[in-house]
Amino acid sequence: MGRVTVRRPVLRVTESGSRTRPDTLAAEEPLEIRVNGRALSVTMRTPGHDVELAHGFLLTERVIADKDDLHSARYCDSPGPDGRNTYNVLDILLAPGVTPPDTSVERNFYTTSSCGVCGKAALDSVRLSTRHSPEHDPLEITPETLAALPDRLRAAQKVFDSTGGLHGAALFDGDGNLLVCREDVGRHNAVDKVLGWAVLERRVPLRGCVLMVSGRASFELVQKAAMAGVPLLSAVSAPSSLAVELAAEQGMTLVGFLRGSSMNVYTGTHRILEPDAAPVP
Amino acid sequence: MGRVTVRRPVLRVTESGSRTRPDTLAAEEPLEIRVNGRALSVTMRTPGHDVELAHGFLLTERVIADKDDLHSARYCDSPGPDGRNTYNVLDILLAPGVTPPDTSVERNFYTTSSCGVCGKAALDSVRLSTRHSPEHDPLEITPETLAALPDRLRAAQKVFDSTGGLHGAALFDGDGNLLVCREDVGRHNAVDKVLGWAVLERRVPLRGCVLMVSGRASFELVQKAAMAGVPLLSAVSAPSSLAVELAAEQGMTLVGFLRGSSMNVYTGTHRILEPDAAPVP
Repeated sequence: MGRVTVRRPVLRVTESGSRTRPDTLAAEEPLEIRVNGRALSVTMRTPGHDVELAHGFLLTERVIADKDDLHSARYCDSPGPDGRNTYNVLDILLAPGVTPPDTSVERNFYTTSSCGVCGKAALDSVRLSTRHSPEHDPLEITPETLAALPDRLRAAQKVFDSTGGLHGAALFDGDGNLLVCREDVGRHNAVDKVLGWAVLERRVPLRGCVLMVSGRASFELVQKAAMAGVPLLSAVSAPSSLAVELAAEQGMTLVGFLRGSSMNVYTGTHRILEPDAAPVP
Repeated sequence: MGRVTVRRPVLRVTESGSRTRPDTLAAEEPLEIRVNGRALSVTMRTPGHDVELAHGFLLTERVIADKDDLHSARYCDSPGPDGRNTYNVLDILLAPGVTPPDTSVERNFYTTSSCGVCGKAALDSVRLSTRHSPEHDPLEITPETLAALPDRLRAAQKVFDSTGGLHGAALFDGDGNLLVCREDVGRHNAVDKVLGWAVLERRVPLRGCVLMVSGRASFELVQKAAMAGVPLLSAVSAPSSLAVELAAEQGMTLVGFLRGSSMNVYTGTHRILEPDAAPVP
């Protein structure tokens, strides 16, 4: 089984000179996901929680809607150069009646039948396809609860501390209680692992939940949150323009630059309660 | 033509209350790259320097070796919902005799003919395919020169300051002089734009050059650097395990955690000169 971290020597150079010392790196290995015997994707990921990753990926790619749509997930017997199983190939068998994904390149959902491809087309395809719109989710949350999440995410990121090299994603309930945290060299993988956990726990749609990510909020991450019915996505750093547009279209609350006690709320501001009154000094 | 930034109102929440104010976001739009009339990829990118992006992408995907392999690149007339060209579809025509890429999913180069997919297989495929091995590049550089690069990258990142949301990539010569800097919501896109600039300037292989990136060093970024013959990749943050393995195999120098006057040199330490002797106090 792949390791989450790898030890290697490194030359540490500072103003006072250089010396070689051991260093801990975040592991990165390819994972091939095969569906009904056909290769669907290869992603560079940190080994571990691969079955969750596959469930989250297939959920957010609209292949499965819940746990029952997936019959089985098992590692292929895929020996590496040393003859040992690499555990880098995952064979997924869909349940009877579930349509396997189109593996042709033209399947890409951004591509419309006409020549145009625009942000609007990308937004349309997501709006039409999510089965779990977060639009009417009644979640309400205080800024104080939100402000506590980055530290809780960081505390739950066990590997980050040793490598400094992993993205984190976590699900919280509306009171700020941690449900699950996952780490990966790829931020989309960290989110897929978290959402795959939710699929396996039969918690999708994730009503009343907050998805917190350690980095930026891209279109892709908002899309994944929307596919899982998450009403609030919160990021330590900046969102992109299309992330904000998609969150607005989906009725999702999007929070960025969540640092210290302050934050930017880009969409769905009705879910953010007024800050508690400051105590009289 | 797409914009690099987008203005939107945002609810700014702090301990002392909340108010709505305008905010600047990094633009994100889909770009579809078509080669000889067939869709090859759709990437979410920051508009601008799209022709460079396509050149860099096709170089690092081993479709073209230099500028002459590409006959023409033009935006398709692709109207969006408002009837105006989205400038989000780029039609690439390869020069006669240049083999177009296989657009089937099974083309994925990580997938070996046997069942196994492992880090070794990924490394092998890159080692066999780059036409510009950096192994014997004679570049030597002082820690002082390297230490100056992050600030120079940041100074050249015009959009980052206004949005806080863009990855940066830049090429420097061995004396630390900036050759080019590009920004993008996707770090692989920022690198593709920089390398595409080099293709268009007929500077590939990038002998004696340093590629500096604002974030982490993944396998994918080392691979792109190797395809362009870059002898030194330098990152502000951590590398992954496979990034270090690939850099070692390619004879590339990989520097991480380049902050202040210190850095970690993971591979190719022979290119790093001894720090200058500290002046007598």
